[in-house]
Amino acid sequence: MEFKTDVLLHGGDYNPDQWLDRPDILERDAEMLAESGCNVVSLGIFAWSTLEPEEGVFRLDWMEQVIDRLYAKGIRVILATPSGARPKWLADKYPEVLRVDKARRRQLFGVRHNHCYTSPVYREKVRIINQKLAERFGNHPAVIMWHISNEYGGECHCPLCQAAFRDWLKEKYQTIGNLNSRWCTTFWSHTYQSFDDIESPSEIGETQLHALNLDWKRFVTHQTRDFMRWEIKAVRDAGSSLPVTANLMYYFDGLDYFKMAKDIDVVSWDTYPTWGKKEDIAIARDNAMCHDLMRSLKKKPFFQMESCPSSTNWQGISKLKKPGILFAQSMQPIAHGGEGALYFQIRQSRGASEKFHGAVIDHYGGSDTRVFREVTEVGDTLKAISEVAGSRVESPVALLYDWSSNWAMEDSQGPRNKGLHHHEALLKMYGGFRKLGLNVDLVDEDCSLENYKVLAITMGYIFKEGFAEKVKTFVENGGTLITTYWSGIADDTDRCYLDGVPYGLMDVLGLRSEEIDGLYDWEENHLIPVGGNELGLTKTYSCRYLCDLVRVNGAEPLMVYGDDFYAGHAALTKNTYGKGTACYVAADAEEAFYDDFIAALMKEKGIKAPVTGAIPVGLEVTTRETDTLRYYFYQNFSAHPVKLPLPEGAFETVYGDAEAELKPLGMVVLKAEKEISFV
Amino acid sequence: MEFKTDVLLHGGDYNPDQWLDRPDILERDAEMLAESGCNVVSLGIFAWSTLEPEEGVFRLDWMEQVIDRLYAKGIRVILATPSGARPKWLADKYPEVLRVDKARRRQLFGVRHNHCYTSPVYREKVRIINQKLAERFGNHPAVIMWHISNEYGGECHCPLCQAAFRDWLKEKYQTIGNLNSRWCTTFWSHTYQSFDDIESPSEIGETQLHALNLDWKRFVTHQTRDFMRWEIKAVRDAGSSLPVTANLMYYFDGLDYFKMAKDIDVVSWDTYPTWGKKEDIAIARDNAMCHDLMRSLKKKPFFQMESCPSSTNWQGISKLKKPGILFAQSMQPIAHGGEGALYFQIRQSRGASEKFHGAVIDHYGGSDTRVFREVTEVGDTLKAISEVAGSRVESPVALLYDWSSNWAMEDSQGPRNKGLHHHEALLKMYGGFRKLGLNVDLVDEDCSLENYKVLAITMGYIFKEGFAEKVKTFVENGGTLITTYWSGIADDTDRCYLDGVPYGLMDVLGLRSEEIDGLYDWEENHLIPVGGNELGLTKTYSCRYLCDLVRVNGAEPLMVYGDDFYAGHAALTKNTYGKGTACYVAADAEEAFYDDFIAALMKEKGIKAPVTGAIPVGLEVTTRETDTLRYYFYQNFSAHPVKLPLPEGAFETVYGDAEAELKPLGMVVLKAEKEISFV
Amino acid sequence: MEFKTDVLLHGGDYNPDQWLDRPDILERDAEMLAESGCNVVSLGIFAWSTLEPEEGVFRLDWMEQVIDRLYAKGIRVILATPSGARPKWLADKYPEVLRVDKARRRQLFGVRHNHCYTSPVYREKVRIINQKLAERFGNHPAVIMWHISNEYGGECHCPLCQAAFRDWLKEKYQTIGNLNSRWCTTFWSHTYQSFDDIESPSEIGETQLHALNLDWKRFVTHQTRDFMRWEIKAVRDAGSSLPVTANLMYYFDGLDYFKMAKDIDVVSWDTYPTWGKKEDIAIARDNAMCHDLMRSLKKKPFFQMESCPSSTNWQGISKLKKPGILFAQSMQPIAHGGEGALYFQIRQSRGASEKFHGAVIDHYGGSDTRVFREVTEVGDTLKAISEVAGSRVESPVALLYDWSSNWAMEDSQGPRNKGLHHHEALLKMYGGFRKLGLNVDLVDEDCSLENYKVLAITMGYIFKEGFAEKVKTFVENGGTLITTYWSGIADDTDRCYLDGVPYGLMDVLGLRSEEIDGLYDWEENHLIPVGGNELGLTKTYSCRYLCDLVRVNGAEPLMVYGDDFYAGHAALTKNTYGKGTACYVAADAEEAFYDDFIAALMKEKGIKAPVTGAIPVGLEVTTRETDTLRYYFYQNFSAHPVKLPLPEGAFETVYGDAEAELKPLGMVVLKAEKEISFV
Repeated sequence: MEFKTDVLLHGGDYNPDQWLDRPDILERDAEMLAESGCNVVSLGIFAWSTLEPEEGVFRLDWMEQVIDRLYAKGIRVILATPSGARPKWLADKYPEVLRVDKARRRQLFGVRHNHCYTSPVYREKVRIINQKLAERFGNHPAVIMWHISNEYGGECHCPLCQAAFRDWLKEKYQTIGNLNSRWCTTFWSHTYQSFDDIESPSEIGETQLHALNLDWKRFVTHQTRDFMRWEIKAVRDAGSSLPVTANLMYYFDGLDYFKMAKDIDVVSWDTYPTWGKKEDIAIARDNAMCHDLMRSLKKKPFFQMESCPSSTNWQGISKLKKPGILFAQSMQPIAHGGEGALYFQIRQSRGASEKFHGAVIDHYGGSDTRVFREVTEVGDTLKAISEVAGSRVESPVALLYDWSSNWAMEDSQGPRNKGLHHHEALLKMYGGFRKLGLNVDLVDEDCSLENYKVLAITMGYIFKEGFAEKVKTFVENGGTLITTYWSGIADDTDRCYLDGVPYGLMDVLGLRSEEIDGLYDWEENHLIPVGGNELGLTKTYSCRYLCDLVRVNGAEPLMVYGDDFYAGHAALTKNTYGKGTACYVAADAEEAFYDDFIAALMKEKGIKAPVTGAIPVGLEVTTRETDTLRYYFYQNFSAHPVKLPLPEGAFETVYGDAEAELKPLGMVVLKAEKEISFV
Repeated sequence: MEFKTDVLLHGGDYNPDQWLDRPDILERDAEMLAESGCNVVSLGIFAWSTLEPEEGVFRLDWMEQVIDRLYAKGIRVILATPSGARPKWLADKYPEVLRVDKARRRQLFGVRHNHCYTSPVYREKVRIINQKLAERFGNHPAVIMWHISNEYGGECHCPLCQAAFRDWLKEKYQTIGNLNSRWCTTFWSHTYQSFDDIESPSEIGETQLHALNLDWKRFVTHQTRDFMRWEIKAVRDAGSSLPVTANLMYYFDGLDYFKMAKDIDVVSWDTYPTWGKKEDIAIARDNAMCHDLMRSLKKKPFFQMESCPSSTNWQGISKLKKPGILFAQSMQPIAHGGEGALYFQIRQSRGASEKFHGAVIDHYGGSDTRVFREVTEVGDTLKAISEVAGSRVESPVALLYDWSSNWAMEDSQGPRNKGLHHHEALLKMYGGFRKLGLNVDLVDEDCSLENYKVLAITMGYIFKEGFAEKVKTFVENGGTLITTYWSGIADDTDRCYLDGVPYGLMDVLGLRSEEIDGLYDWEENHLIPVGGNELGLTKTYSCRYLCDLVRVNGAEPLMVYGDDFYAGHAALTKNTYGKGTACYVAADAEEAFYDDFIAALMKEKGIKAPVTGAIPVGLEVTTRETDTLRYYFYQNFSAHPVKLPLPEGAFETVYGDAEAELKPLGMVVLKAEKEISFV
Repeated sequence: MEFKTDVLLHGGDYNPDQWLDRPDILERDAEMLAESGCNVVSLGIFAWSTLEPEEGVFRLDWMEQVIDRLYAKGIRVILATPSGARPKWLADKYPEVLRVDKARRRQLFGVRHNHCYTSPVYREKVRIINQKLAERFGNHPAVIMWHISNEYGGECHCPLCQAAFRDWLKEKYQTIGNLNSRWCTTFWSHTYQSFDDIESPSEIGETQLHALNLDWKRFVTHQTRDFMRWEIKAVRDAGSSLPVTANLMYYFDGLDYFKMAKDIDVVSWDTYPTWGKKEDIAIARDNAMCHDLMRSLKKKPFFQMESCPSSTNWQGISKLKKPGILFAQSMQPIAHGGEGALYFQIRQSRGASEKFHGAVIDHYGGSDTRVFREVTEVGDTLKAISEVAGSRVESPVALLYDWSSNWAMEDSQGPRNKGLHHHEALLKMYGGFRKLGLNVDLVDEDCSLENYKVLAITMGYIFKEGFAEKVKTFVENGGTLITTYWSGIADDTDRCYLDGVPYGLMDVLGLRSEEIDGLYDWEENHLIPVGGNELGLTKTYSCRYLCDLVRVNGAEPLMVYGDDFYAGHAALTKNTYGKGTACYVAADAEEAFYDDFIAALMKEKGIKAPVTGAIPVGLEVTTRETDTLRYYFYQNFSAHPVKLPLPEGAFETVYGDAEAELKPLGMVVLKAEKEISFV
């Protein structure tokens, strides 16, 4: 189902089931929601034990009253299936629903996210409650979407899951000989005689067969998707045709979201940036890249399902948001192509583990609080810029983000078990483009590369079958490729490529990677410019952690190492291949390197954002498009007021003042008719 | 039974059961004990397997010989019940006595403190051995007291304990609905259908239902008390009417000692300060506050049951005590109202885990050692000041120390999971009074506030039912209240108060706490004095970790924040309520702040110690009272000789030289007839 | 069987079983091995599942083809028994072969080294495969040695092992009363009634009965030896009389190698120095001491079985070896009396946990790599100096290295649980001799002290029965003894000595140790020379961690403490006893102290290496002997070229240039006829 909205969503998780004995509070909630400019809530996420207090006994009236009350105030509902936390009676009566951990211990009832996704009993109980909800509320005019379960995650090692894993492997590999060969099981004499022999990874068993670990992670995604589809089918079978979402999490390592996203209609995600831990722009950029990842999963609008309006109690330090942070954080998803900003949570719970998690309405309960005022300001602003709803993001740059490759790389033992620093390197690459105002999509190895001008691969450890060929074609046809060290090392069962790496791209790049050096934390090397290099690079940069030693075979060295026994060896190269260009970054260089190198390369290629003048440090410039219009978002994450680089040509102001200096944490939104397309 | 002594106790744990094959050594022990001025030993603490080598076979003659031999030298005995370490035959024959840990693993035999307090078999076996000992030695003239078990602690999660926990909950809450409501179980859908559903906290089950965690800790105290009462009943049933003690531990987190103390006649405790880790006065003050806590448990004399005469082998660094430290440490309990200083241990064991723990007699075995000489000096001094035995301590100040509140606060998740720094804050508050020579009692929320002039609440997170009212009455009637940030947040099932906090005291304090900011470890803020403030504070102080933002409603701001977005907001306030005064400390301020603020406030209130002149830094001044006399203790924990601030009026010297400068680690004891009462 | 070789071994682990589907690669391997100067491979280490893919089905033909192919190129084979990693079918059919961990959890199949050494089934299956291999290849002319299993290690706590442990204890102690007495079980009431009561240490049971822990470790060595003998017997029973080795590991804590070495014919070991983590000489010295330890195990030639030709993937940082490091590392075993330098591994595996471990032939597969060139250089050099094969090492110095004592000391709780720094102290003592060019043997308390001039005891915590007497005789007869703090504390069941320590040596040393102080990490003290002391020491040195306070009784203090309450107390003493000299180092002094003190003492005693002139910092000088010749090895581990201190008298050059400055990481080998014996 298509998700369409003509307002930007504003609201959050709402748990009236905690307050059924306080009708006065429920009444007040609705009033305060309206007062704060909220137009939607997520409802019923942990309500199963209230909805079905005993097996087969359903109590849905209270929910209807809540929905009606909200609807009367103009507030819509994203209705949750309650599978994120099961009732205790279900665990007590059917222990098979309880997860078994890696050490093969059946868990007791407790916390949440602890049910077996394979269990037929659990699936049946979920089907029933989902259908009950869908039958009752699937056509209520207030309800606009399904919130399927909550933050899917975790894994189960019970016998049911072991059997499902074996079936999945059998389907994938067909013969055990094929599996043995792909998994390299002769190492340490681990050859399997049959699929029935295989057990999931365990700290009391196998931990170091990397292909097993990798396939297990893939299976966990597969099985979670299968469960999610089962949940969706239940609401569909009950006649609901509303769009469905699942709330995803910040760079979540446990599931391949590119795969999960295939089964949902709209992506939403939960963001809890640790503002204050680093300077604002660093936090903002990391959050921005995750917004871009979420948008890229379906290349469609997404929204922010959760974020904290105040301090986040489960973080090490529950830091208050200084004035303006909530505003800036809430505008970020919109600036990156999202359709709304929601919070966890509307009303703070009185007890248990999240009782000190920030909320729109806190324990005090009044609207005369700083947080409530700031939430209201967000609501007013979202209303003021609601015309951007439905516009899309176009990106000239694709940045590789492949779950399988990341999983395998972190597990592969070497070349730096004390930290590969992949995420930091990724952010440096991303920042090089973002500082130029260029939109970036994140892609995995299955994504199409068509319509991109630039492909950036940061530690693309695994090249799955066909990927190198796709990249080669991309360059051949005129694309610009940037690849770093530690790319194209292994195939998609983490089996190393023979005969030279980066696999399949040695001719494209004009070099071969020979050795890679791991540096101790206290060591660094340098990148020194080659005199008169094509990109005009003149500065020296430090690099750390990993230094790749390449044998150049056709590529032009632009920079060389400055130290150690490989001083003078190529550290940055550029090669022409077909109509395109392929650069190789050999070491984990500092941020300034990426900024200067990417700026020089983009200038050479004539790729730029549609604004005039340089973009000040800390100012984020993003764009959204309709068929005829382009929206310009400016957010100032620096500590100083900055002057805006305005659109090329005539523009109108949607929000803020385009001519004045933009104060820290402030936003300006402009729009212009599209005269030139930059993609 | 009342515990009375006319000598100050000196001695320690004695384990002759380790040396029964060496009668020469046992003989030598008695001689050396007498030589060192010891007058008491704790006997039989780990002797069960020697007393009852096989089930039902008792061997008590050796103990009688030991007691007789000691008695002949004038040495008394505190006789232990041996339940602190059970024999292996008991564990082998009755596995139910072995504890089950949180992860539900039945433990094997090993170490100590690992028996189930609920097990009927264990209780029966303990009853039998306790009665045998009481029948045989309960009336021996050498025996003066029972040492019930040893350092009670730990918990068991076996089925017997689960059942007892459920019964305890049923008794407390009556209906499961009431429990669900108080525990806020709707959060994450954890509603219980019956008491039979409930399981104790477990890392493989429930960890985050805070009220469950809190009630479980209370149950552990309840069940341990129940077991302790069972032990005491056994000796009483066998006809012994001697007083009983249990040796408690340094700020022990595992048991609520205010409750434990109700069942024993006299409190004793085991202290192992880490001298050398910080400057002497810092270590001494922390130890002093624990002495005061132990005295306050029953508001009666206590004594030091264990301490190390030399280095403590189970600490990270087994540091020798520099000359004089043992003396100073041993006088501290007396200065704080105690009746004796005992050691662990008299003779060092040859093997197993504490073989390198310091002792009066070490492996070498001679009396020509530094440690033995210092022990003897302690013995001589205790004899010299024995007239103070039986005198009591009167304190104008009550400082809140509530186990339930501390437990709940540490478990509550937020506002600073990486360290609330409660203990440090408590010590800063305590030090503010102690540096003025004011005695301090520690009280929990059940204690009477009558007879105190000042009540200090440092992070009083939980306000149990009735506590706020009691505090309000205290202030109304003229008391001085100091409260800090993070007080009055939750009720006694850790359910947050609605409608504003500090609960019940907003009018008393003239303010409401709105938000609380957690600071990163590297951050700080400042407290800046308001010009012309009532207390005449003029300095600026740093604060860290937690900053409370209050909305003032009647209170007078004395200091304000210096930095961040809340610069200028009130950080220290003062309010008049009824005949009393209530101050609010909003942030975790540095030690100097507490010193200056408390000194100024006590001066305004006219509360001072009965000495003339200022108290030098590092000099501890404490007092003990009889009906007609006051004893003055001076201990110098600074690195320099200091001049003493003498009593107001005439005095006599009990120990040391009142006029000379007191050298580091030295002590002076004076006495004066009481002319004025300062309480 | 005697191991004799007239070439120096060069080669490494070779796993053709991973490449049976690639005959082209197997062919290329043989060619490249020959090209690189390799003359031997270790074969079949993890090949069990290829050799016996199903129970009782044997496939040995491929191995014969591999051996024949290698033999045709002149490459010999060290043939492994494959017990280091068992096939999955064996674990699936006979679960008893799976280990049980300390927490009593039966492990699942996985990783390696995880089989029960006691299991009759496992032993039987190992016997069969070993015999099959021995029958087929035991007389193949290419095969020169057996590589028994791989890196023996680990322990099992299954019921079979518990029973074997009890039998071992019964054999050792005869009566349970004797065990109780030696283990000091009365402490904490742990008296055993019978051997059947005893269970191995467990974190869910007993952890703190030190004698149990110590005997358990000894039992693990016993049982592993028993298993190893079983393996050897199998190949012997099948008619093979080739020498056997087992590859040992770097200062491996898990097994007493002095005992293991008794059952094998030649010692080999696996070394993975972390070059780059510290300066080269520090890494080299630590590695050198381990070479010396391995040589000392049998006082016979040994060799290096494994080392990494490039970066080691399982270390925290996979650092490349800078040019020359591989050469220097590979020459070190030869310089210290070894007969060869082998690598793990010949060809890099494609998958699983060691796929990024360095190899002679990497994934790329060509010989045009830096690593392959450096390996070839090693091969050429080993050939050039092959005449040294068969020569032996003579050492004037014995340095105590006793597994039982080390185990007990680390487990003993006190005097410094946060780090005794034993290994560092040992290296400082070792370095003092090595910097003088003196060869050092490492000995345990069972070794003969005859033929040594110096005995150095660094923290000889346990003195087993008879050891003190042996040392006393050594000194009486003219030997020079150096003993440090924390020596002679406990007997060999970790039961403390009474009546003064160092046990049995108080008269030899002329002092008694009274107390030992543990220093915090940030503390230090100093050693200050006594004016006009016999050794002419004049400098002040720092000391840390542990300071022993001795009562001198005849010894001459050479240095005293500079700080703390024991300033002025003796810190270094010298005593004459019989015809010998005994020195006591009371504190953990800095490296420079050991250098100066040992140099002065050796000068006084006239003990020196047979070279003229001082040895430059960072130059390692070692010697090997035949009956008539002495070989001089010089390796430069400093960062600068150095001039060599040449032999006394005429010499010939075997390798390198004796007169030129020796460049960093370079080697020179000289030889001279023996005119004087320095031992």
